[in-house]
Amino acid sequence: MSRDALSFPSSSAKPIEHYLPESTGLARPLYPHVTLTYATSLDANLSLSPGVQTALSGTQSKAMTHFLRSKHAAILIGAGTAIADDPSLNCRIEGVGGYGGPGLEGQPRPVVLDPKGRWKVNAESKVVKLAKEGRGLGPWVIGAQDTPIEESKHRALTDAGGSYITLPTDSSGRFDWANILNILGTKGITSVMVEGGGSVINELLSPRAIGLVDSVIVTIAPVWLGKNGVQVCPDERKNEGGVKMSVGKLKDVRWLPLGEDVVLCGRPAWQ
Amino acid sequence: MSRDALSFPSSSAKPIEHYLPESTGLARPLYPHVTLTYATSLDANLSLSPGVQTALSGTQSKAMTHFLRSKHAAILIGAGTAIADDPSLNCRIEGVGGYGGPGLEGQPRPVVLDPKGRWKVNAESKVVKLAKEGRGLGPWVIGAQDTPIEESKHRALTDAGGSYITLPTDSSGRFDWANILNILGTKGITSVMVEGGGSVINELLSPRAIGLVDSVIVTIAPVWLGKNGVQVCPDERKNEGGVKMSVGKLKDVRWLPLGEDVVLCGRPAWQ
Repeated sequence: MSRDALSFPSSSAKPIEHYLPESTGLARPLYPHVTLTYATSLDANLSLSPGVQTALSGTQSKAMTHFLRSKHAAILIGAGTAIADDPSLNCRIEGVGGYGGPGLEGQPRPVVLDPKGRWKVNAESKVVKLAKEGRGLGPWVIGAQDTPIEESKHRALTDAGGSYITLPTDSSGRFDWANILNILGTKGITSVMVEGGGSVINELLSPRAIGLVDSVIVTIAPVWLGKNGVQVCPDERKNEGGVKMSVGKLKDVRWLPLGEDVVLCGRPAWQ
Repeated sequence: MSRDALSFPSSSAKPIEHYLPESTGLARPLYPHVTLTYATSLDANLSLSPGVQTALSGTQSKAMTHFLRSKHAAILIGAGTAIADDPSLNCRIEGVGGYGGPGLEGQPRPVVLDPKGRWKVNAESKVVKLAKEGRGLGPWVIGAQDTPIEESKHRALTDAGGSYITLPTDSSGRFDWANILNILGTKGITSVMVEGGGSVINELLSPRAIGLVDSVIVTIAPVWLGKNGVQVCPDERKNEGGVKMSVGKLKDVRWLPLGEDVVLCGRPAWQ
């Protein structure tokens, strides 16, 4: 196997494939297929504290993440995760480009949402270095329309084959998910795997955005992290009479034990 | 089948039996076997709002709950749940006493923790009515040592074959879990199934009490309830250096799909 390459057994991959994007084009006109994926504890925490990376799941879950990355045209995270984790954001499954395969075949486009210009991307950022080594695509950063990117950051992005894209933000400084998906669609992205962190996941699960999600793949680890962690818990939803109701429900559900963890696959039920 | 009786297939019961109390006596001197069981959403909510009963899981999960009740000498809830749900707290599995079986065989003792004397138990309470009908045992209420029970409540309890037990409370008005289990043990209770609600579960999962738990059986439904629900999220735990760490981890883990839900069985890893 190539250096650092991972493998994910086809027996584990097979039941998940049903939830992955088809490779025939955009899921809907101008909107890519959206797969939301994350790993939590039993108390729905992604990590012990904001800005802290918590190893929740095992080796098999890591291999699954990279298998999923190989099946998507782009992977998307928020600036908070980019800052906290300095993530690689490439695909290290044996056989993709840079890991035994030709060119950059199977490598997803890293996309970082950064409406406030917080991520200090530079030549030392892992995702930039990997792109220069031919082991991943250069990252796209989506920034706010009225926020010009600093020259040094822009150079780091373009040197790695990445780019800077802008979108309007609302009064609380957030992008509209339809806009995000639309701009990615117009740039040829047919599928996006949304990986985190907490803000991005909770925004996408909120009543106003969850209708844009095609598939959900959640790993749950048998551990409780306790209060003051980063939790997956979307904004509440009320019906016309003001009565609280569930925010979202999955249909077409499968629970797949993976090591000590379980992997839940499903599709939002209102699609 | 008897009126209202439920059945739980032995194929589903078999993998769970490994986590259930043995019928040979107390798990430890004076401490009953403790099984913690609850059902949450993906965002770790037990219900949409405090005091609101939310149907999270399906018919099969209900039958499992009653199967589990048949395997424990007592079931324990907090006063908040008793007030919100007016629960039956008996076992309705086909074949136990009151549901096709002789006497009260297999019926667990309902135990309600009520340190502040909030539950207005009376002749109309479901658990009292069922006990009088010979379909369940009379409830035990555990109250604070310095809080005498009102005469009418005491009569409702004793008329149903129940009783009132008192224990000391700490400065925040809570019982010590070791005391609770100890008093149940001295009264011949060899196993307790703790069912909720949020305060009781979070207390039992807290760093100071989780060591008393023998088995955990958690049902997870593929739904998000959103913010402002009743969440399972115990107090945080820090090591001697003040660094946050996970509150608890399970070992000997099994994930059992049940309808659309999954049932997680495990044992706290520090036992």
